[in-house]
Amino acid sequence: MKQLLESAGKIKSMEIRGAGKIARFAAAALCDYAARVEASSIAEFDEKMKNAAQVLVSTRPTAVSLPNAVRMTMRYKAGSVEEAKSAIAKNARDFISRSELAMKKIGEIGARRIRDGDTVLTHCNSAAALSVIATAHAQGKSIHVYATESRPRMQGHLTIKHLDKLGIPTSFIVDSAVHHFMNRVDSVIVGADAITVNGAVINKIGTSQVALAAHESRTNFIVAAETYKFSPKTMLGELVEIEERDWNEVLPADVARGLSSVKVRNPAFDVTPREYVDLICTEIGAIPPEMSYIVIRDYLGWALEELETNKW
Amino acid sequence: MKQLLESAGKIKSMEIRGAGKIARFAAAALCDYAARVEASSIAEFDEKMKNAAQVLVSTRPTAVSLPNAVRMTMRYKAGSVEEAKSAIAKNARDFISRSELAMKKIGEIGARRIRDGDTVLTHCNSAAALSVIATAHAQGKSIHVYATESRPRMQGHLTIKHLDKLGIPTSFIVDSAVHHFMNRVDSVIVGADAITVNGAVINKIGTSQVALAAHESRTNFIVAAETYKFSPKTMLGELVEIEERDWNEVLPADVARGLSSVKVRNPAFDVTPREYVDLICTEIGAIPPEMSYIVIRDYLGWALEELETNKW
Amino acid sequence: MKQLLESAGKIKSMEIRGAGKIARFAAAALCDYAARVEASSIAEFDEKMKNAAQVLVSTRPTAVSLPNAVRMTMRYKAGSVEEAKSAIAKNARDFISRSELAMKKIGEIGARRIRDGDTVLTHCNSAAALSVIATAHAQGKSIHVYATESRPRMQGHLTIKHLDKLGIPTSFIVDSAVHHFMNRVDSVIVGADAITVNGAVINKIGTSQVALAAHESRTNFIVAAETYKFSPKTMLGELVEIEERDWNEVLPADVARGLSSVKVRNPAFDVTPREYVDLICTEIGAIPPEMSYIVIRDYLGWALEELETNKW
Amino acid sequence: MKQLLESAGKIKSMEIRGAGKIARFAAAALCDYAARVEASSIAEFDEKMKNAAQVLVSTRPTAVSLPNAVRMTMRYKAGSVEEAKSAIAKNARDFISRSELAMKKIGEIGARRIRDGDTVLTHCNSAAALSVIATAHAQGKSIHVYATESRPRMQGHLTIKHLDKLGIPTSFIVDSAVHHFMNRVDSVIVGADAITVNGAVINKIGTSQVALAAHESRTNFIVAAETYKFSPKTMLGELVEIEERDWNEVLPADVARGLSSVKVRNPAFDVTPREYVDLICTEIGAIPPEMSYIVIRDYLGWALEELETNKW
Amino acid sequence: MKQLLESAGKIKSMEIRGAGKIARFAAAALCDYAARVEASSIAEFDEKMKNAAQVLVSTRPTAVSLPNAVRMTMRYKAGSVEEAKSAIAKNARDFISRSELAMKKIGEIGARRIRDGDTVLTHCNSAAALSVIATAHAQGKSIHVYATESRPRMQGHLTIKHLDKLGIPTSFIVDSAVHHFMNRVDSVIVGADAITVNGAVINKIGTSQVALAAHESRTNFIVAAETYKFSPKTMLGELVEIEERDWNEVLPADVARGLSSVKVRNPAFDVTPREYVDLICTEIGAIPPEMSYIVIRDYLGWALEELETNKW
Amino acid sequence: MKQLLESAGKIKSMEIRGAGKIARFAAAALCDYAARVEASSIAEFDEKMKNAAQVLVSTRPTAVSLPNAVRMTMRYKAGSVEEAKSAIAKNARDFISRSELAMKKIGEIGARRIRDGDTVLTHCNSAAALSVIATAHAQGKSIHVYATESRPRMQGHLTIKHLDKLGIPTSFIVDSAVHHFMNRVDSVIVGADAITVNGAVINKIGTSQVALAAHESRTNFIVAAETYKFSPKTMLGELVEIEERDWNEVLPADVARGLSSVKVRNPAFDVTPREYVDLICTEIGAIPPEMSYIVIRDYLGWALEELETNKW
Repeated sequence: MKQLLESAGKIKSMEIRGAGKIARFAAAALCDYAARVEASSIAEFDEKMKNAAQVLVSTRPTAVSLPNAVRMTMRYKAGSVEEAKSAIAKNARDFISRSELAMKKIGEIGARRIRDGDTVLTHCNSAAALSVIATAHAQGKSIHVYATESRPRMQGHLTIKHLDKLGIPTSFIVDSAVHHFMNRVDSVIVGADAITVNGAVINKIGTSQVALAAHESRTNFIVAAETYKFSPKTMLGELVEIEERDWNEVLPADVARGLSSVKVRNPAFDVTPREYVDLICTEIGAIPPEMSYIVIRDYLGWALEELETNKW
Repeated sequence: MKQLLESAGKIKSMEIRGAGKIARFAAAALCDYAARVEASSIAEFDEKMKNAAQVLVSTRPTAVSLPNAVRMTMRYKAGSVEEAKSAIAKNARDFISRSELAMKKIGEIGARRIRDGDTVLTHCNSAAALSVIATAHAQGKSIHVYATESRPRMQGHLTIKHLDKLGIPTSFIVDSAVHHFMNRVDSVIVGADAITVNGAVINKIGTSQVALAAHESRTNFIVAAETYKFSPKTMLGELVEIEERDWNEVLPADVARGLSSVKVRNPAFDVTPREYVDLICTEIGAIPPEMSYIVIRDYLGWALEELETNKW
Repeated sequence: MKQLLESAGKIKSMEIRGAGKIARFAAAALCDYAARVEASSIAEFDEKMKNAAQVLVSTRPTAVSLPNAVRMTMRYKAGSVEEAKSAIAKNARDFISRSELAMKKIGEIGARRIRDGDTVLTHCNSAAALSVIATAHAQGKSIHVYATESRPRMQGHLTIKHLDKLGIPTSFIVDSAVHHFMNRVDSVIVGADAITVNGAVINKIGTSQVALAAHESRTNFIVAAETYKFSPKTMLGELVEIEERDWNEVLPADVARGLSSVKVRNPAFDVTPREYVDLICTEIGAIPPEMSYIVIRDYLGWALEELETNKW
Repeated sequence: MKQLLESAGKIKSMEIRGAGKIARFAAAALCDYAARVEASSIAEFDEKMKNAAQVLVSTRPTAVSLPNAVRMTMRYKAGSVEEAKSAIAKNARDFISRSELAMKKIGEIGARRIRDGDTVLTHCNSAAALSVIATAHAQGKSIHVYATESRPRMQGHLTIKHLDKLGIPTSFIVDSAVHHFMNRVDSVIVGADAITVNGAVINKIGTSQVALAAHESRTNFIVAAETYKFSPKTMLGELVEIEERDWNEVLPADVARGLSSVKVRNPAFDVTPREYVDLICTEIGAIPPEMSYIVIRDYLGWALEELETNKW
Repeated sequence: MKQLLESAGKIKSMEIRGAGKIARFAAAALCDYAARVEASSIAEFDEKMKNAAQVLVSTRPTAVSLPNAVRMTMRYKAGSVEEAKSAIAKNARDFISRSELAMKKIGEIGARRIRDGDTVLTHCNSAAALSVIATAHAQGKSIHVYATESRPRMQGHLTIKHLDKLGIPTSFIVDSAVHHFMNRVDSVIVGADAITVNGAVINKIGTSQVALAAHESRTNFIVAAETYKFSPKTMLGELVEIEERDWNEVLPADVARGLSSVKVRNPAFDVTPREYVDLICTEIGAIPPEMSYIVIRDYLGWALEELETNKW
Repeated sequence: MKQLLESAGKIKSMEIRGAGKIARFAAAALCDYAARVEASSIAEFDEKMKNAAQVLVSTRPTAVSLPNAVRMTMRYKAGSVEEAKSAIAKNARDFISRSELAMKKIGEIGARRIRDGDTVLTHCNSAAALSVIATAHAQGKSIHVYATESRPRMQGHLTIKHLDKLGIPTSFIVDSAVHHFMNRVDSVIVGADAITVNGAVINKIGTSQVALAAHESRTNFIVAAETYKFSPKTMLGELVEIEERDWNEVLPADVARGLSSVKVRNPAFDVTPREYVDLICTEIGAIPPEMSYIVIRDYLGWALEELETNKW
């Protein structure tokens, strides 16, 4: 348990960061715990595992990849402790290897949607979206990218550095210029922080207006997302919480000084409804956003009862 | 002529800046020239005035307020030089005084569209739009403003300082957050750099996606603009030129260094089609955007022939 | 002045009711006053007339037809009192006779838009809309009408009695059933209480959702309205006030009894934006809603200055 | 069989009413019959059960909850009569207890979608929708409700009495006023009479125009419905029949008297397409409307063959 | 009168064809008649001119350019027969020369809307639309054209021959392929057979679905039309008649043989509503479709009374 | 193997044509091969079957029904060669008989969506769509059909001959007239060449603009398609290839002669997005287009891994 608590601590303190890393780390920690835990009966073992799962999940209640990783690892039915341990080990291994491959697979799947000569727009700095673009480029397709700066944290700077290294011709624009250039764009490709049961995509602030502009121009809007981004709790009706970040990301202190009637609102994400999403590319295939429920139920393995009663 | 050339020089060198200031300065210069010019016949006078008009208009070919001011001043029909001089003097005086009052009138007209308790969103830093907001506030209406930062030049900083001085509660947001907050907004109020014959509004980059988001949410989108912003040349089919500004407004030099595949695109304006505009508040009344042609023809006094044949 | 005050009293006390009747009554009263008034100079006469106009207009500040009738009657330019009196008399006569003919003309114009075999939907009980339907029927066109009951005051009962007398086959439906039947409808025809400078139609509550349903189904939405329904004050930016009527029109006393958390909201009108209106049939011709400004300026004869400075 | 026939009679005569009650009553009746029936082989037992199922289902061919309840109870596979009886008993018990809990669960799931301070609109008088509102209120969220009167049967009176008892601040409006107030509404929550395989919601007349107005304003439109409302027959392409009710619900006899060209059309329900529905809250979780097929196939357990060949 | 009747005969027999040719021919005929007619008073002259006008207009009651030409020629107010004759002569000359220049002017105005590198789509074979394309090409702009075949009469064959002569790269497509290629198109440019008072464009069958597809993709839809295409009668509410042409334009006789349940419907035109039209390029300037009323009233000079009472 | 190669040859040479015939022929060929093949172990057998499957699938890489038929036939899990052979035989028989019945079932399912008195529009010549129409007609429903000619290959001629034989009243129109008549249409029914994982329908060129026009008018758009039309490869992100056919299908040689700047573009299909599709009628039931993924996964039995790794 000590090691498990240490692992939990690393997630809590954000030493381990990023949806994918957290997920794989938790699966490994749970697998490791299962291997060491001593239990005289399967019932005792199950109980201990559930406690361990709860410890991990409670570290970051809003990180959607964490419960998904734990759930995937905990999908076992066993008659004996031995059987259970081996099932958990296999689950964890499978989850980790699939998760590690996810980026590559998503890249391959998404790249098939990009034709030679296409112009692609991306917002913020999504590893999955960039995997799609890089794969298409590596296939020899000539593509042009529009990349937004993504205020307030300017993740667009990372994006253009990445694209520049790959030698992909890129136009860098302010977030406000998306609509102006949309008619020249063939496909928009973005990542996701979470996807709800009814196919809404929670992603970097500004994504929803990119999607709206794409829809207005009949431009494809494609989301690249690993399956652990799908949020099981939305089956319970839960709204994904939109984090508000610090004001000083937006307003320089010297401008803010003395302004008594002004408040900064700095939501990190916004919500794009399913009607603006043409396709979600996941490591288990391209799907329409309406299939979110199926991903949560069939692939991630969640049942409603579980969500209601689980302590983790 | 020397003085006129001096005046023209001041416009050209951008010593005189801003649509309204340029317009009033040109009207005054033309009026001054008319008062001094010597002509033995009305024909000679007309000829000299036309030359003067052309000198002024050619200083800034894309400034829409300049030809409008000149046209308003030149609306005379006279049998004698005396008559003509006095007509021109009156025209110039009228234009200047109306133009000076325009902000105030637009503020009054627009403020009637704001109800007590309303939430208003504005983009960039438009004097006319702020006049509307300030007037509504001065009338004792409780209003809340969302102000965008307006990348790349951050004119939003000016806007919030202005609103803060007036004591109007304001939320400051990045441009990407407009869609996220739109459902809480009752009216959007923006200015205009130019308005075309078919009611399209050319304004600060990002305006068109604010308008699109407003339209999606059935939120009123109101433009505050002086009549000299209406572009007569668009009757000739001319497209309003969208200026592209310097890359380093957008990308810091240290980020840009060494990026060989990346280009910055930095358009200063975009185009909002008339279907997203509920109302334009001008100093001659509130009108729908489709009335642009009537403003150009009846109020500004332009005829097609003139636009085609005028050297100015 | 006594008779004028009496006339004003009749409008105020609502002895004279209905947009058309008020308008004609006011024009006649003003004409009558002009005929009797004694003035030693045209300036004195003008002054007295303005006062009289103000008396009349101030009786019902929200009745849009009243200032329009007064404005039409007051459109005179005269060198002498005699000339002025005769101009006013002519204006009043013209206005009254045109106003009396308006229904008939609107009926003829609107009827040309209805084809043999058409299905027409109408909401509430508009004399102008019924004039269109009756004229088309009288022309021998076979038409079927859907008439809504128009809660809360059930004006639909008047409509179906009227249509029944004319022998026009009619289906009577609750307001909620409009969307259900819209796909079978060829044209919607309604009246208007007021039309704003940007072409929005203020009419009986429910009209805007009829218009929305018509738009969704690509069904023509036609408004039948006399020109005195166009609201000049909206040029000043004024919002048309939406009257809230008594709660007991909506909720029976026995149901309401004892309900402490429930309030009735009973707006009499709503606002249909110009984008849902195909055509407005007026007595001066069929026009698109965007022409509202032209009707106010050119036909009703209003200028902005006047609206700002007039006491009436 | 006698008791079963009696039970069938009670459903037929509408002694047992309401989708939920009919469903639970039928499950209980079938279970009871199974317990008593004598059969020498499982084949004979199956045959008898099928007959019994058919008797029940044929009592109200358009009540969608009836075949769903029977189907859920009949989901057994057994080698012996004993096994079958016990499976049926368990199925019936499960169905009944889940059905009884459904309202509560739907309330909890839906309530998570309501935020503190929200304004909610509901149409007609749906127990499931009210469960959502009441649960959110019970959680201490401050909410305001708009409730429609729901002509012709004024179910809105029941709704406001219910909400008043709970102390929830409510505005009562005529059905025609929905569009007028929609911009102030955060979420619309309604019930359903039936849901088709492609996610269309059949509900009280007027629902579809509420949904249209919500969609126009980007307001969430949420349906609260138990799973037994999903219509399996629509997999066969069947259209849900829209009942037309009596004319005198709509038109008072004294108004109707003598009207020979007027007919009342009084459809009880209308159809809201899936594109206007954001979410359906069921007792098995929140789902998008497109998941209807999955509910019918996986949860209710229907296969196409069965629908085609079943006599029940 | 004999010559006038001869001229009328030539229009009736379709010896003179095409909107522009008919218009100019009628203006010339009327002018010629005016020059020869003998009248002892201006009243007699007026009467004779009206009769002549009526003779001409009645030859082709649905040709919109004919009454417009006659109206333009008949815009005179004269104290003497001499004065009248000279006014008519001037009117006819003006109309004819403007009409002859119209194509060129429209070409220049429209061409300013085409940018170097644009892709343009045109439907059918409109001289005005081709003038726009040819002018842009002549200005050295590199453009690519998509031309539809325009079933059933295959006017697209004329279009591609014309474009080929000019050396403009052209893709020829079936009418059904418009939507497929629309995302690559920058502007659609078509002609018009008639334009209604509310800005609807009557043009070759298929135009409305081209416009719909353009609107769906946010592609500019531009109409090129001479002012004599604006239909004054639509101010009276008249619907523009859609001619149905012969079945054998559509179906070869060998296919049609023996088909007893099949009828061909062959409408020559369809109606594009103003909301899908960005701009109309006329010889008096670029205008939005809503300005149609102003063209009819101010430029063509029609008043409602006239339309109602004129025999022509 | 020889016979299998012969069968493959017949598919390759297009001796066997049509999605359904190819599918059934391939299933039979595979079944036949399985019956004859000699294998000493199940592993050897599996290997040989995979090779055979690959031979068949590679004959027409873009025919979507071919891999689906092979996949359905190959769904076996067996411990012995005998078991495998019998499973394959059963699979093939099932697939063939279901496929043969598909048309009839689709007809029955779709016909339930057509009401007595409906007007139906169909595009091109789809056996499945015609099965729906014919079934509705055979049920005694009075229906009227609009049939398009479907340039360039005029499949509409086949359609009207078919409908004429059945005695169904039909209006034959050019493809450009679809929008003009859409408001009179109750349902559009078309077939499909392929359906993608996100519910897009690939069908005869022009289908997408028919769907767009239907959507604009709130007219139901129904697709009739056998399950073997659903494209599994689109799960991998693959775009369905749009074949371009010969130019001389479109342009007669005599018109084409000498045109050096003109190229014909002749795509055979286009893509209709799921948002314009109300329902897909398949032989396994009516489903919304979003269920495409479920058809591919659950009914056709594809898994992503298989698609990635299968040589066939």
